[in-house]
Amino acid sequence: MSPSSNSTSAEQRLQQASDWWSTSIIDIRPGVINTRGIPIQELIGKISFPQMIWLMLRGELPNAEHARLLEASLVAAVDHGPQAPSIAIARMSVTCGLPLNGAMASAINVLDDVHGGAGEQCLGLYQSIRKLLTDDSSIPSDNEIDAAVDLGLNAFIAENSKIIPGFGHRFHPIDPRVAPLLSMVNQAAEQGHVQGLYASIAQGVERALLRRTGKALPMNIDGVTAAVYGELGFAPALARGIFILSRSVGILSHAWEQSQQGHRLKGPMPTTIPYRYTGDPEHSVAVVSDKNPTPESSQ
Amino acid sequence: MSPSSNSTSAEQRLQQASDWWSTSIIDIRPGVINTRGIPIQELIGKISFPQMIWLMLRGELPNAEHARLLEASLVAAVDHGPQAPSIAIARMSVTCGLPLNGAMASAINVLDDVHGGAGEQCLGLYQSIRKLLTDDSSIPSDNEIDAAVDLGLNAFIAENSKIIPGFGHRFHPIDPRVAPLLSMVNQAAEQGHVQGLYASIAQGVERALLRRTGKALPMNIDGVTAAVYGELGFAPALARGIFILSRSVGILSHAWEQSQQGHRLKGPMPTTIPYRYTGDPEHSVAVVSDKNPTPESSQ
Amino acid sequence: MSPSSNSTSAEQRLQQASDWWSTSIIDIRPGVINTRGIPIQELIGKISFPQMIWLMLRGELPNAEHARLLEASLVAAVDHGPQAPSIAIARMSVTCGLPLNGAMASAINVLDDVHGGAGEQCLGLYQSIRKLLTDDSSIPSDNEIDAAVDLGLNAFIAENSKIIPGFGHRFHPIDPRVAPLLSMVNQAAEQGHVQGLYASIAQGVERALLRRTGKALPMNIDGVTAAVYGELGFAPALARGIFILSRSVGILSHAWEQSQQGHRLKGPMPTTIPYRYTGDPEHSVAVVSDKNPTPESSQ
Amino acid sequence: MSPSSNSTSAEQRLQQASDWWSTSIIDIRPGVINTRGIPIQELIGKISFPQMIWLMLRGELPNAEHARLLEASLVAAVDHGPQAPSIAIARMSVTCGLPLNGAMASAINVLDDVHGGAGEQCLGLYQSIRKLLTDDSSIPSDNEIDAAVDLGLNAFIAENSKIIPGFGHRFHPIDPRVAPLLSMVNQAAEQGHVQGLYASIAQGVERALLRRTGKALPMNIDGVTAAVYGELGFAPALARGIFILSRSVGILSHAWEQSQQGHRLKGPMPTTIPYRYTGDPEHSVAVVSDKNPTPESSQ
Repeated sequence: MSPSSNSTSAEQRLQQASDWWSTSIIDIRPGVINTRGIPIQELIGKISFPQMIWLMLRGELPNAEHARLLEASLVAAVDHGPQAPSIAIARMSVTCGLPLNGAMASAINVLDDVHGGAGEQCLGLYQSIRKLLTDDSSIPSDNEIDAAVDLGLNAFIAENSKIIPGFGHRFHPIDPRVAPLLSMVNQAAEQGHVQGLYASIAQGVERALLRRTGKALPMNIDGVTAAVYGELGFAPALARGIFILSRSVGILSHAWEQSQQGHRLKGPMPTTIPYRYTGDPEHSVAVVSDKNPTPESSQ
Repeated sequence: MSPSSNSTSAEQRLQQASDWWSTSIIDIRPGVINTRGIPIQELIGKISFPQMIWLMLRGELPNAEHARLLEASLVAAVDHGPQAPSIAIARMSVTCGLPLNGAMASAINVLDDVHGGAGEQCLGLYQSIRKLLTDDSSIPSDNEIDAAVDLGLNAFIAENSKIIPGFGHRFHPIDPRVAPLLSMVNQAAEQGHVQGLYASIAQGVERALLRRTGKALPMNIDGVTAAVYGELGFAPALARGIFILSRSVGILSHAWEQSQQGHRLKGPMPTTIPYRYTGDPEHSVAVVSDKNPTPESSQ
Repeated sequence: MSPSSNSTSAEQRLQQASDWWSTSIIDIRPGVINTRGIPIQELIGKISFPQMIWLMLRGELPNAEHARLLEASLVAAVDHGPQAPSIAIARMSVTCGLPLNGAMASAINVLDDVHGGAGEQCLGLYQSIRKLLTDDSSIPSDNEIDAAVDLGLNAFIAENSKIIPGFGHRFHPIDPRVAPLLSMVNQAAEQGHVQGLYASIAQGVERALLRRTGKALPMNIDGVTAAVYGELGFAPALARGIFILSRSVGILSHAWEQSQQGHRLKGPMPTTIPYRYTGDPEHSVAVVSDKNPTPESSQ
Repeated sequence: MSPSSNSTSAEQRLQQASDWWSTSIIDIRPGVINTRGIPIQELIGKISFPQMIWLMLRGELPNAEHARLLEASLVAAVDHGPQAPSIAIARMSVTCGLPLNGAMASAINVLDDVHGGAGEQCLGLYQSIRKLLTDDSSIPSDNEIDAAVDLGLNAFIAENSKIIPGFGHRFHPIDPRVAPLLSMVNQAAEQGHVQGLYASIAQGVERALLRRTGKALPMNIDGVTAAVYGELGFAPALARGIFILSRSVGILSHAWEQSQQGHRLKGPMPTTIPYRYTGDPEHSVAVVSDKNPTPESSQ
């Protein structure tokens, strides 16, 4: 049976199907691939990979200074070693037989709120603070920043938690990735390439946390890249997205290294170290049947 | 270098490693596999697969009536055809070269809040309504149910959205999976195997939505299975978890059928139907460079 | 622009789109959900979950004895503890912020050739041996089995590896899941419900491995379930598929238990145990630049 | 119970745990992150993202010319539109509720043998041809290339299939991404930065396919990037890995665009276009029970 006996309707339904998959990113016709309107052959060899990332995400090409900041952030976050769950998962996946795409998928999947969301949450915080600043385009004073930061932090803590994403690190007293990125942003601000407001807010949050807790909770990689992405005008969700592009390099590298080491079925620890069983002692199935749950009270 | 020169510390760190991976679900020693304390050989061939699911999730075996309700819910939700994103993704994945595990992974991953979370959200709503009922263990009247439902719905709508998960279906005027499940719960309640309170709440929500909107928004598969899981004492997150176990059967079946059909690189539609490009007309890279973003305003 | 100005062509393209997504598994119309032709309301509460799995995969309902064998296999393989990579990945994923669907996806993904493919490979081996047996429908003698097994093993080893999937276990001297399953198959064969040929082949392989290596390499869970699936007529790829349905229960249970334990960012080991760095000692970027690769020789 | 009462053994087991997770990629200590031995602060802002990718994968920094070739390949392959399964899956995933990491995971997972493996397979073919060339470091003549290509193609076809990965395109008569990349490689060869042998082999394969089939099967993006990666000394598996890094940009961009469009539960086609059901007509469960399978013959 034809899906429709009415020719107008068939046309309309085809149009609906085309509309269903509409995009402003890429136009493809036989022999033609235009990215954001630009023929691909004009881009290959002409623009950098970070510029291509920017063009794909935003529809415009960044200037050289903006691309340089994005590139530095991409370089900074590629890896944090095999005790990061994502990297460990990539390596374990390879020993289960997965090719690189599968190992990367299982690993990238876990770059979720806790493992990959701090930059996004931190940029959200910065944006909420920025909205509290008067928008007269002059650079606010440190005092104005501090006041806005205090309000913003209070609201964030009330709505979320006392843990401020982007500050403090469970391993590094000072995160060595922060200084070079912060220095680049500040330099770009001095030269007028970016406004510098997000960097000021980030440093204001750092001051506030020291003031409030009495101990240093210095900016970490998420806090500083969130400042960079804020300066560059990226939406918070893309702070996570760009982090994933960066960390994918580490995930791929560790998956590849693991594939060269040749283990099979690599669990989290060598089997010489047992896990701890904390449940019921051994008993027969009959005993359990007597414990039939009263469902309402069982959870 | 040895990780520690102190033998006590080495013992302690080993203990930490064992504790790191502690579980009350399964105890394994050479030749021994105990599930929730019961030797696996006492379970194989003795209990049903739904009973095993219950035992694994809750540490106790259900009685036959409870297992029957769980089993019916597992049977009901296995599939909703190739236009469900999860099923389509499973099929497309196979044509990209993935084995069944990979196709299932990419598909199960999308059973997230929108595609797999309605049962969980609905059970959360039911629980919030149940807490509003006086807990004197007598069955509340329809009027008491209606009052609690109204309060619960108002709170849910204020906090979430007007869309009530578990009710109404964009395709089915009546979801054919509801009546048999509801009938089983009601029968189990009459026989005293379950309390019947969640089924009453579910039907109360159905009445309230008709009253409020003037049109029928009948319970769907998520609404009725949430009632079943509520009766059985499952936590809301497990409404999603059990749904995934059920839908995995459909995902596997479609992935397997696709592998027998032998396509390669199956996109969402045949290429005879184009997608719609909505972006910039073709232009040279130079033109774009002039549009360099003022980052702050670009998003 | 309309995708086509020709009405016939529009109809045809719509038909192509419908054909693109064709399935014999499920038929859905408003108010109707037919699984393999059977209205869903006739299945809910009437057939078991394993019967539904069989119906979905094969288009027919199994009889009670066949369903019982499938069910026992599903029960047997649900879990092998947190040192199995799949289970560990599920638990780590939860601590990264993933909901149950995401944790299950990352875990199921790694049930690939090495971690989830042994049953499939073993059933393939059994089938290759079975084809070597004369097909006169009488039960072959142990000698005939042994001869076919020897040929089949030789071919398998020549084409694949010396490791025979389904036999031996790196942890269990005797896999406690084997005896009850084997006993069920043998009983079903005695009663004429299955032929018993795959169980005979499996035991023949066990004998051959002892004869060849001089040490016991007893059947493991993959070897015995492959025999069950062979008796039941499942294709090898579905040995993997059904294993995934079973192990999904363990994956879900561990993900759920982990979510109740509340860790954040759980790596493979506690950070009190360092990983080992085996690479270059610290050096400046300038030193490396001098080592510019001669690409052809670098890998 | 302590895992061991023997202190020496505890030390050894800790060492095994450290060795279990060994890597030469990254060394992390409090305040220190060294990538391949180089402090991260010496890399941020100093090297490009493609150089960082190379350093992570290979332990050395590429020179500027090699980095330029890698960068051009990364730019070239970012996207091929929403009818590519990976891109469609990313978009569908977002409408199911997944955040960007989840959408990227489900999409990257399908960059498997058929959808993401052509570059790897093609580089494997090129390498097998290269081994057939005498290795006297002089550039072989076109005739020598043609002879080696013929032998290599014959072996590839015998072992794999008649479909030569990297040549021909189901959509583009000429792939617009090829000319600029090939021109860059040839220029780099003329300037002595690369040997040019893989580019010659690739063009030799193109000639051979025209000669053999009588029709043009021009190099596509996979064929030309495989030549680039061959020139640069990457292993075949990394042709897939680097392609994934590139295509991840398209996957992220489409997931992000979809999240801004705001659909829910986007299936492959609008529901105005039905799928085709090809299975059994509606019947009662009783009828099917009579068709109980004779298992051995059912598949």
